[in-house]
Parts: sequence; C-alpha cells; structure tokens
Amino acid sequence: MSDVKFSKEEFAKRLAEVKAAMSKRGFDVLVITEPSNIYYLTGYDSWSFYTPQALVVALDSDMPIWFGRMMDGASARRITYLPEDSIQPYPDSYVQAVDRHPFQLLAQLIEKRGWGTKTIAVESDAYYYTARSHALLVEGLPNARFKDAELLVNWVRIVKSPQEIRYLEEAGQIVERMLARALETIAPGVRECDVIGALYQAQMSGTPEFGGVYSTSPMFFCADERAGEPHAIWSDRPLRSGVPINLEMAGVRHRYHGPISRTIFLGKPPQAYRDLAAGVVEGLNAALDAVKPGKTGEQIEDVWRKTIAKHGIEKESRIGYSIGIGFPPTWGERTASLRPGDRTVLQPNMAFHMMTGVWAKDTGVTITQAFYVTDTGHKPLTSVPRELIVKD
Amino acid sequence: MSDVKFSKEEFAKRLAEVKAAMSKRGFDVLVITEPSNIYYLTGYDSWSFYTPQALVVALDSDMPIWFGRMMDGASARRITYLPEDSIQPYPDSYVQAVDRHPFQLLAQLIEKRGWGTKTIAVESDAYYYTARSHALLVEGLPNARFKDAELLVNWVRIVKSPQEIRYLEEAGQIVERMLARALETIAPGVRECDVIGALYQAQMSGTPEFGGVYSTSPMFFCADERAGEPHAIWSDRPLRSGVPINLEMAGVRHRYHGPISRTIFLGKPPQAYRDLAAGVVEGLNAALDAVKPGKTGEQIEDVWRKTIAKHGIEKESRIGYSIGIGFPPTWGERTASLRPGDRTVLQPNMAFHMMTGVWAKDTGVTITQAFYVTDTGHKPLTSVPRELIVKD
Repeated sequence: MSDVKFSKEEFAKRLAEVKAAMSKRGFDVLVITEPSNIYYLTGYDSWSFYTPQALVVALDSDMPIWFGRMMDGASARRITYLPEDSIQPYPDSYVQAVDRHPFQLLAQLIEKRGWGTKTIAVESDAYYYTARSHALLVEGLPNARFKDAELLVNWVRIVKSPQEIRYLEEAGQIVERMLARALETIAPGVRECDVIGALYQAQMSGTPEFGGVYSTSPMFFCADERAGEPHAIWSDRPLRSGVPINLEMAGVRHRYHGPISRTIFLGKPPQAYRDLAAGVVEGLNAALDAVKPGKTGEQIEDVWRKTIAKHGIEKESRIGYSIGIGFPPTWGERTASLRPGDRTVLQPNMAFHMMTGVWAKDTGVTITQAFYVTDTGHKPLTSVPRELIVKD
Repeated sequence: MSDVKFSKEEFAKRLAEVKAAMSKRGFDVLVITEPSNIYYLTGYDSWSFYTPQALVVALDSDMPIWFGRMMDGASARRITYLPEDSIQPYPDSYVQAVDRHPFQLLAQLIEKRGWGTKTIAVESDAYYYTARSHALLVEGLPNARFKDAELLVNWVRIVKSPQEIRYLEEAGQIVERMLARALETIAPGVRECDVIGALYQAQMSGTPEFGGVYSTSPMFFCADERAGEPHAIWSDRPLRSGVPINLEMAGVRHRYHGPISRTIFLGKPPQAYRDLAAGVVEGLNAALDAVKPGKTGEQIEDVWRKTIAKHGIEKESRIGYSIGIGFPPTWGERTASLRPGDRTVLQPNMAFHMMTGVWAKDTGVTITQAFYVTDTGHKPLTSVPRELIVKD
C-alpha cells in the first residue's frame, strides 16, 4: 500500500462521524456515489467514476465496501486501507452494456450482506447517481426502505482537519505560482491556448517541494468577447489589447482545491471599468473582514451587498461556497453558500472560496479570495493582492 | 455569435435525425442532460453541467430549448444558433439550494409549452441525470408518460460527418505531439508531475495552426508500481529506471477526442515483458486489419482474442469503444464496444479507440490505436508506430 494521503486514524474518525450522522437520521446503510465522498472516507481517487461505482457504509460493519469495475480494484487495494473483503469489483461485461447494469450486482451484494430489509439511504442528487442506478437498486432490494441521505457526507466534510488545512494551503501555494505564470505569459499576440498550456503546466508541476494534480474544472479564461461569461472555453486566437481577461483556476494538492480568480486587463482600462473593479475589491475586503466563527453565510453576503450597492453594483448570484476535496465537475462542496437565506454558522476550519465575480451584459470583473475560518477571523489561502491587474 | 464549430445546416441535420429516432420510438419530447449530446445538437460547451441543465427537444418545435443557470445563458447566446425564446435560464437562487431544485422549474417550462400530457423520454442513465432530477420531473408532470430514451442521441452520434472526421484527425495530430513531448521529457530522475505538466502544455498548445482544449479525463500515467492499474493518478516522485510507464491521453479539438496509449519502458525491459508487448501488438494489428464495413464489434474482438491466445495472453475487458465528442467523465460514446456480444455493424465514418491494454497482477502493457472506419478498412488517427517504446 502506498500513496495513502491520511492516517488510518483520520479515516476512522471520518467514518465514525458519518456513522453518527446516519444513526441520528435512522439510516442503517448508506450508498455513496459522489467521488469526493468516496475519497473522503477511503482515499480512493482512481478515475473510474465514468462507470457505476459506490461505497457502501453500514452501521453494523466496521469497514465500508468499495464496489467498482474489476480493473480498478487494483487501485483500491493499493491506495486505501480497505481489507480484501471490502473490495468488491464487478466483471467488465457489466460496463456500458445494454442488457445489464452494475447496480443490479450492487443490490445483490447488499442483500448478501444481510442489509436487504434495512433502511438504506442514497445520495439522490449526487453526481453519477443516475435515475437508472436508483431504479435498479430499488427494484433489486424490494424489502428495503429507501431514504434520501442528501448531503450527509458533504456536511461532515465541511470542517477540515489540520492535515486537510495543510493540503489546502499547499494548493494555495500552487495557484499562486499559476497566477505568476499567467502574468509572465499573457501579452497581446499570444494565442490563448498557449497561455492556457503554460497554466496547466504550472498546475501540475506545482512547487519544487511538491507537485500538483488535475483540478475538477478547466481553466476559466474568459477574455475579450467572453468577459461577460463565467464558464466559457478559451480559443486559439491571439490575445488583443484593450480587453479584460477573467481568469479562474485552482491549484490542487491531493484533491484539495485552492481556487483563485483575477481579472487581468490588457492595455489601459477605461475609468468606468476601474471603478467597477474598485467597488468589487471594496466589497470583497469588507466581506472578508466580517468573517468569523458564529457569523452565518447570509450575514457575510449582506456586508458585501451593502458595500457594493454604494457603488451602484448588484450581483444576483451567491458570493461563495464551501471548498475542500473536489472531483469533476466541481470543486465546490455543495453545502454552505454565502448568500441570502443561508444560515450555516461559520466554524473554525471551514474553508470557502469567496467568489465575488460580477458579470454585466458584456463584461465582468472577477477578483476573489479563498480562505479558511480561524478562531478569530479568516486566513487567506493565497497572498496575492486583491486588485485589478493591469498589464499595459 | 462566434465560436460556433459547425454550420447551421449540420446542426439541423443532426436534429432531424434525433427527431426521426424519437418519432420511431413514439417519443414526443426528449429531455437531454448528457453534455456531449447537448453539444452535438447545439454547440453549447460552457462548463455549467455541475448545476442541473437540460436540452429539451420536442417533435412539434423547430428548435430545442436550452435550460440552464442564469449566468451561463450568455454563453448559450454566443455559441449556439438558438433563438432567444429557446434560451431559458433559471435564477441563481436555485443553484445547490436545499429547498428548491432547477428541475421543478424545468417541469413548469415543459408544462407551459403544452407538453405536460405528452410522452416524454429521458436519458435515465446519462451523466448528470440524477435520481432526484428524475423524481422531480415526474412529480412536476403528473399527466405525462415517461419513457427511457437510453442512448438515443449517442447512437445518432456514432457515424461522423466530414467535419467531425476533420476534428478527429486534428485531435490525432495534437496527441502525436503530446507523445513526442512525453518522449522528450521522460527520464530517470524527472518528477512524474513535471512530465505531466509538459503533456498538458502540449495538449493545450496543440499545433502552430490550431490549439487544443481540455480532455474529459486526466492523463493516465501509470508508472512503476502503478503499471498494473489502468486509471491511477500520477505522483510527484522522480521516475526510476527499469520500470514500464503506461501512458493514456487524448488530443482534443472542439471536444473531439483523439486518444492514444503507449507503454514507455525506462531502461532495459526483461524478455518476458518484451514478449508480452509483442503479443499485444500482434493482436492489435490483426484486429485492425479485420476492421471494415459490415463486420461487427464482436468479430473484431474475436480476431484479437485468438491472436493473443497464441501468446498465452488473455484480456477480460473490452478492446475498444466508439469515440467522438467527449465531456467529463469519459471520451467514450457509451454505445458500441469491441467485445463478445456486441453486434454493432461497422459503417464508414464510425470512430473507435482500439484499447488493447493488458494488465496483469502487477504490470501492464498498453499499446492502442484510434481510427475511423473507411469504405474498405480503417484509417488511423495517428501515425505513431505501434510498438513498445524503450527509453534506455
């Protein structure tokens, strides 16, 4: 076994917390498909979630069961602490077949372990938990009672351990280098795809002390005509002067994401654009200053909203979300958001990306800050100044 | 509008084929969530599938409807031919909220268009079509009849147009450069993450004539102790000599994937390993020679199986799958596989990745070929020799 990123004790603690949450809600068995949740509980991170797979946690079983494609069992054996009996691969004839489905075997496995009459919770809206997967599980376990676990594991993940904070900080160090590389590379006449290539290289090479891995999402490099779009894909055309580039990306260390967004203006920004950016930065700083344990997500957003209103700026979308482990398609944890109505109470070692991007009809400014909550306030994951970057 | 990758006529033809297939199966309305299918019918490729989105095709409507997050509507307007009435964004308060879900709004939209009593087909096992999405759609449309569309659009995609073939060939040109970069970079003492960084850079920079974009999956770089695993993640340790590296990756042009896999042996491979590689290459070449219109997936696989059996090699898993457009988590189209039981009849302009990877207990050899079917045989997407690469 090698490449296990956390101690046996840390995994045991996580499992105990998940079981406690299951117990509280009356679940005997939990079927997990979200890759981030599987990684959280086992360390398993091979790229196999394009075929059905699951982790089954049962209150009456010491270890969870990994269920996945035959050929990926070898990875489960190497990178997790799971014993052989907890690694249950299915044959390749079940992969993308028209006449059979892996979740039929999963139902049989659950039945065989004696859980067929239990209360089984599923992550009904998790990535990779399809309508058919669910229907086949229900069909295969006619005597079970099914419940919706919703974001049970995601909510357990929201407060980070010291080791998780360390990985987040290392991710922050990687993304700082990525941004430095962007500033070196971006210039009029350079093809967008060449800038992007340099950024990916920096993302993987990381630092001399430690390397990086892939992020959940591509680089968001919304330049020029795409400055009003948050998630557009880059082109292979040369950059031209006089336009903003909204760049969003993450450094990643052992699947922990340290995101950042900055606007880089090529050439001389118009005064109105400078004013917009100044308003965003003021709002961002005010909201960050408001962060401390005991505050709620909506209280933080309210500080932002009131600050930018003074500049005549509005933003409908949320200004942040919880971060940590990420697998495609998102590095957000899908739990707490910084927005009206969110009553999540901030606690030390929660981590967020304060995503104060503002998009207008055909332009946008994105200057953001990832941080974690400390005993008295917050600590940023990056030390890059929060300001509009002008590359003249 | 810019960055549209196909002509209006090509999109119209695709839509007509999908509608014909719907009509044949008695579907009035089709709700599509698989990002590749949405891209195929509209050209929409912003990274927004981490929140619920859908494309709705109805027999009685000329244009499909894009339904997605408010902020991404701007991309839909720029990169698709859809008219304003066909772009239906939902408010940000529905994003990852505990008390509401975008598919409740989707149900209302379908009702409002007069399709609430129709036969509505869904992609029940598609990526990003969750159990909850389906349950809410059914709940919100109590008078509709729901059917499973299965892989309806994916099957329409299987035969490529001349423009699609061109993008596949360009993707092949990109991946050739990526492999050349790997051979330049890989050496004992170099950190794996630095090799990977160089590969990503090559993937994005593409060629001097055209650039690349992100692939559905990370680089698979299964070196050393990971040579027996197909989908393990790289490390940041230096490479050592005397070990195989199984590399799998794709060049990508406008979301069309040209994959390749090669084994690079660092140092001197043992004779047994050379023999294994020679058997794989013989099997691969024999199977490729068997490719022509009229043959079935299982007939191709049978040629491979019999050839490698002579070398005492076995492979349980399929030896290939249909390729084309890809979004995370896979560049496979999920339709035809080259394996026993697959009766798909090969036709000109179908494209496949012949994925003849063989993994044993603790090692593996992966030498593969992406190609498309021609009138008389096949044309490879790459011209790299099919052989074990030894870097001594």
